[in-house]
Amino acid sequence: MANKDIGLECAGFLVGMGYDATVMVRSVLLRGFDQQMAGLIREEMVERGVKFLHKFIPVKIDKLPSGKLLVHYKNVVDNSVQQEEYDTVLFAIGRKALTEELKVKNAGVDVQPANLKIHANDEQTNVPNIFAVGDVLHERPELTPVAVQAGKLLAARLFGHKKTLMDYADVATTVFTPLEYGCVGYSEEHAIKQYGEANIEVYHAFYKPTEFFVPQRNPKNCYLKVICLREAPQKVIGMHFLGPNAGEVIQGYAAALKCGLTFEALENTVGIHPTISEEFTRVTITKRSGLDPTPQSCCS
Amino acid sequence: MANKDIGLECAGFLVGMGYDATVMVRSVLLRGFDQQMAGLIREEMVERGVKFLHKFIPVKIDKLPSGKLLVHYKNVVDNSVQQEEYDTVLFAIGRKALTEELKVKNAGVDVQPANLKIHANDEQTNVPNIFAVGDVLHERPELTPVAVQAGKLLAARLFGHKKTLMDYADVATTVFTPLEYGCVGYSEEHAIKQYGEANIEVYHAFYKPTEFFVPQRNPKNCYLKVICLREAPQKVIGMHFLGPNAGEVIQGYAAALKCGLTFEALENTVGIHPTISEEFTRVTITKRSGLDPTPQSCCS
Repeated sequence: MANKDIGLECAGFLVGMGYDATVMVRSVLLRGFDQQMAGLIREEMVERGVKFLHKFIPVKIDKLPSGKLLVHYKNVVDNSVQQEEYDTVLFAIGRKALTEELKVKNAGVDVQPANLKIHANDEQTNVPNIFAVGDVLHERPELTPVAVQAGKLLAARLFGHKKTLMDYADVATTVFTPLEYGCVGYSEEHAIKQYGEANIEVYHAFYKPTEFFVPQRNPKNCYLKVICLREAPQKVIGMHFLGPNAGEVIQGYAAALKCGLTFEALENTVGIHPTISEEFTRVTITKRSGLDPTPQSCCS
Repeated sequence: MANKDIGLECAGFLVGMGYDATVMVRSVLLRGFDQQMAGLIREEMVERGVKFLHKFIPVKIDKLPSGKLLVHYKNVVDNSVQQEEYDTVLFAIGRKALTEELKVKNAGVDVQPANLKIHANDEQTNVPNIFAVGDVLHERPELTPVAVQAGKLLAARLFGHKKTLMDYADVATTVFTPLEYGCVGYSEEHAIKQYGEANIEVYHAFYKPTEFFVPQRNPKNCYLKVICLREAPQKVIGMHFLGPNAGEVIQGYAAALKCGLTFEALENTVGIHPTISEEFTRVTITKRSGLDPTPQSCCS
């Protein structure tokens, strides 16, 4: 039962280890992530044997005398109910802020009615001597390194005479699906919404990872795109990468985005051959051009 | 027979495939590269079974009736000669510019007497209508992607009304030794020579790659360092990484260096967990502090 990253990762691990895995998804895969990338991840997972039940939610689970679990699930579009037996059911349904259990209201801390999370500017709640970091924060990324970084900076400000604020922009992340997905900055949907389709340029490419050659793995979903503002020098506002070692690939580019990476600077960065990360320095085809982004030669 | 990258890579491949390999080195390993990193690469290779003959040069090879090769080699310090039988001898001794064979002098192109290479500003030789790119150039990196990039930019200037010049600064590269080495920018020696030891700050750390845990590989040579100017905001002038997927890790940071990466920006880049590239965002210990750069916990 999943529609975000952890559920897909678990299904990927399980199928990789030879188990049968079915992912039940209520709405869309990887909501909030770039949906073109999510579609490619789904394709790759289906090819590797992961089954998807789209637009379903579980309504009941019966434990059978055999020990198996009979899951009843409902189609959210037509409300029809189906059932199927499984050995194990995993729920990867996100996190809940335990602000009620913490009784933060007793200390006067306000929470958002919709999700019980805390709104805090620079980690300071509405009660000036109470601070919050991590997943309990409203509209902040639910990522461990974000919590760690925000906590370190907060401690340095409170007790170390430092002034650096946590910068929540352009936080990179990786989804460890069978074909890994790393990204930083805007999704294409978000960029279009924010800047308008006419004002962004999307460079994209399919590519063939060298490490796929010997085991003859199919590279058809290995894909990357760079989302830029259209006006020169084409500031890069989002980078998306689907392929091996996506986290290792995208991390350095996240540092580059922090330094105002432009498409011009990316083009002028010399590639390291043979790597897959170098593909970002070689991408030249825009979506707007309509040109074929599939690789023309063995190495590109 | 090797003292640069290709020879070490070949020895690494051979030992990895179960063969016995001995590397003969005339002077120092990886001349021109950061020598602390070269030392760690050597240590790791020795631990994996690669043998090194330091300060030797071959003087004669006899083919024996058995088909084996008897290599006679001389110590460059005391001139003593030794010999040993080998199945195969590989020479990884670098490249030579074939400017004589090309008869460039007949066209009036000057070459450097020492190495027969061509000095060219912006790829233009002393004969204005003759251009040169790639390994034939004097004091330019001998790397395929550099030649490709310079060639593309030159063609665009000559025939495409473009003006972008090739930027040879901060070209990243990777040595595919058993523990891979990726670097961009200054070596520590070069930084000290250029700026003075008092004016640079070197941040460094040993780290434990997650992928070493299950196979219980020894992470003792997994190490990275960031070389900065000492004055705030501590412009980063060199990054060095020894570990798995070094090329994937360093490529994005090379783009960041192109954008003026500072240590402050690096610190403020949120890590992607678990990756090894995130270690660059977490490094805090300076060499100057004398503090222990070995990891204190399982994950750091």
